Amino acid sequence: MPISETWLLPDGVADVLPEQAQVIETLRRSALDFLASRGYQLVYTPFIEYIESLSSLSESNQDLDLATFKVIDQLTGRLLGVRADMTPQVARIDAHVHPVEGVARYCYAGTVLHTKPQGFNTTRAPLQLGAELFGSDSIDADVEMIDVMLSLIETANLVEGVHLDLGHVGLFRSLVKHADLNKTTERQLSDLYQRKALPELAEFTQKLKFGSDFYALGRYASDLAALQRNLSAEILQDEAFKQAFDALTTTQAEIQARWPKLHIGIDVVELRSYHYHTGLMYAVYAPNRAAPLAQGGRYDGIGEHFGRARPATGFSCDLYALSAGQFQAIKTVIAPKGTNTTLLAAIAQVRNNGLSVIQLLGEDDLTSVPNATHQLVNVAGEWKVKQI
Amino acid sequence: MPISETWLLPDGVADVLPEQAQVIETLRRSALDFLASRGYQLVYTPFIEYIESLSSLSESNQDLDLATFKVIDQLTGRLLGVRADMTPQVARIDAHVHPVEGVARYCYAGTVLHTKPQGFNTTRAPLQLGAELFGSDSIDADVEMIDVMLSLIETANLVEGVHLDLGHVGLFRSLVKHADLNKTTERQLSDLYQRKALPELAEFTQKLKFGSDFYALGRYASDLAALQRNLSAEILQDEAFKQAFDALTTTQAEIQARWPKLHIGIDVVELRSYHYHTGLMYAVYAPNRAAPLAQGGRYDGIGEHFGRARPATGFSCDLYALSAGQFQAIKTVIAPKGTNTTLLAAIAQVRNNGLSVIQLLGEDDLTSVPNATHQLVNVAGEWKVKQI
Repeated sequence: MPISETWLLPDGVADVLPEQAQVIETLRRSALDFLASRGYQLVYTPFIEYIESLSSLSESNQDLDLATFKVIDQLTGRLLGVRADMTPQVARIDAHVHPVEGVARYCYAGTVLHTKPQGFNTTRAPLQLGAELFGSDSIDADVEMIDVMLSLIETANLVEGVHLDLGHVGLFRSLVKHADLNKTTERQLSDLYQRKALPELAEFTQKLKFGSDFYALGRYASDLAALQRNLSAEILQDEAFKQAFDALTTTQAEIQARWPKLHIGIDVVELRSYHYHTGLMYAVYAPNRAAPLAQGGRYDGIGEHFGRARPATGFSCDLYALSAGQFQAIKTVIAPKGTNTTLLAAIAQVRNNGLSVIQLLGEDDLTSVPNATHQLVNVAGEWKVKQI
Repeated sequence: MPISETWLLPDGVADVLPEQAQVIETLRRSALDFLASRGYQLVYTPFIEYIESLSSLSESNQDLDLATFKVIDQLTGRLLGVRADMTPQVARIDAHVHPVEGVARYCYAGTVLHTKPQGFNTTRAPLQLGAELFGSDSIDADVEMIDVMLSLIETANLVEGVHLDLGHVGLFRSLVKHADLNKTTERQLSDLYQRKALPELAEFTQKLKFGSDFYALGRYASDLAALQRNLSAEILQDEAFKQAFDALTTTQAEIQARWPKLHIGIDVVELRSYHYHTGLMYAVYAPNRAAPLAQGGRYDGIGEHFGRARPATGFSCDLYALSAGQFQAIKTVIAPKGTNTTLLAAIAQVRNNGLSVIQLLGEDDLTSVPNATHQLVNVAGEWKVKQI
């Protein structure tokens, strides 16, 4: 590699320079402080783990496994993975490291690495921030989590005009079970739903047991009242289906009551993480952005891999996405060289007021710090900050 | 791997649980705020880079190369390294990404990974925090950096009883040059100095050109006055030697003036990063701890690898080491379920006061949150926080 290229970075990773780092740092702090005020306790998870530990989700989610960088542990010769998602790590902590009887709430913030950019997001190193709630299967837990997610986005001043999408894997899953579909048909249906291919869906469901119900699920995916009118009585009375349907309507009503102006959309065949999630799924979208600002859902039993299956719900977001490319100008005050007591006291005072102050070095003059914005000058015996 | 072991972590990496994460988070913030007040601007550096970019130091420092985990970039098939030190990354930023004419100050905080534990430190994932100053070769820059390092340790309440070690690679290096030693002899001498093997050193230097000077350097390594008395006039007049010697004495005096109670030790043959450093070296030790709390030095020309060689000095530390295993109890207030306006207002008030408040979920009672410390109770129409 010639010297002229040593400074090039791989695709999907980037330096964050001071004007932007400052914004993200502030956002990180306010987000973690907000989560702490809601009772979510901070944990730091390790950057590397044995691959078997990281794969609690990847057994059902091959994408995560493919997204994980692998390295050899030089101490043991075993395979390590670099974290690509912090949720399985927090589940491990809940299951074994910090097992709480009852309800446990955790939050986290840190870089995760992906072997390739995921979806519309072009970064391979999101700054993942999230919250997880273990030990409660009540709808209250999901409602709290969605409320926390929205409030967090409010903290970042992005809640104006956002759009909440609610889904529930239980509707499709209970229908599949009721109709006793085989895996292939289930996958074909799931694919048709994802592609929103209604004509194909109509044709495909014609020969299917409970075909009109599967068609209605796709046709009225975003309108619960219409869906209810178009499902067969047998399905509407299925216990698992009823429970999922009720969870969705209750959550929608509870969130709408807390966020009266929020636009809530329903999509009962949004199955992006179908194998991973076990109940309600939620995502917040900003206007004019393809990727969600934050997303999450219920994934009961995630801790089973670590010997302790518990109800769980949570969400995560990328702080880079939440910072929305904002920059913040940095004020720097230049002070003259010297250890004169009044000068040092003046510098300490300006620093206490939250400003950056640097003293000139060696024989340097003002030009040595071209990005300085202010200087400390002595006016009639008093030190004052003046713009440069 | 049986389920019973999926939660085991590799040696040298660990989860950080809430009671400790809280302490480190607070320390991280106060450290970065302090560095900002001194004019050090925050940058976030990437977790992975092309191995050629990370190796600006490793060309002269094979240890760093061995400490770096390597992975294949699935987008290009090229070799990537996981950062094992953030200093070369900040040098890359100074050289190319954010080139400032004049003096530039940067700080950073983030996890680095090592393939094996380094030295006495048993972690393979230190939380590295550091500061770097580019563009000034004045002694003032080193003095500022050491002062900042000590003040940072003061921020962490650890400055009591610490001990500053000062060294300068220029003394040995100029002697080697003056005596025109070959690489093998230089390495043998360096090894004898490191092992503090005085009798062997005496024997080894007997046959050497300027042998008595090389012996004096080891014998009076920690006493500059005695060293001066025991060196030959020819060496004392060597320009490079004189410059290094003066830098060391000036720095010692300037730091002692700023930190009158500080114990400063000199070691002119402490050559731990001899190939990497180019001038002054500094390290702070706490009583009863083998590993330094923080360390750094001058490494002029580090940016040469990226096409822009500039004077540079800086230090780094491990936030885990600085947090000194402290824990902080977390207060959690339980509030009853409900959306009653006065209850919600009371909860918001308590949260604004900086406490964590959680509302009960579903049919849960107090026992659902066994680690809660307080509860919000209604006493004669008023909501009050009481200890549980």
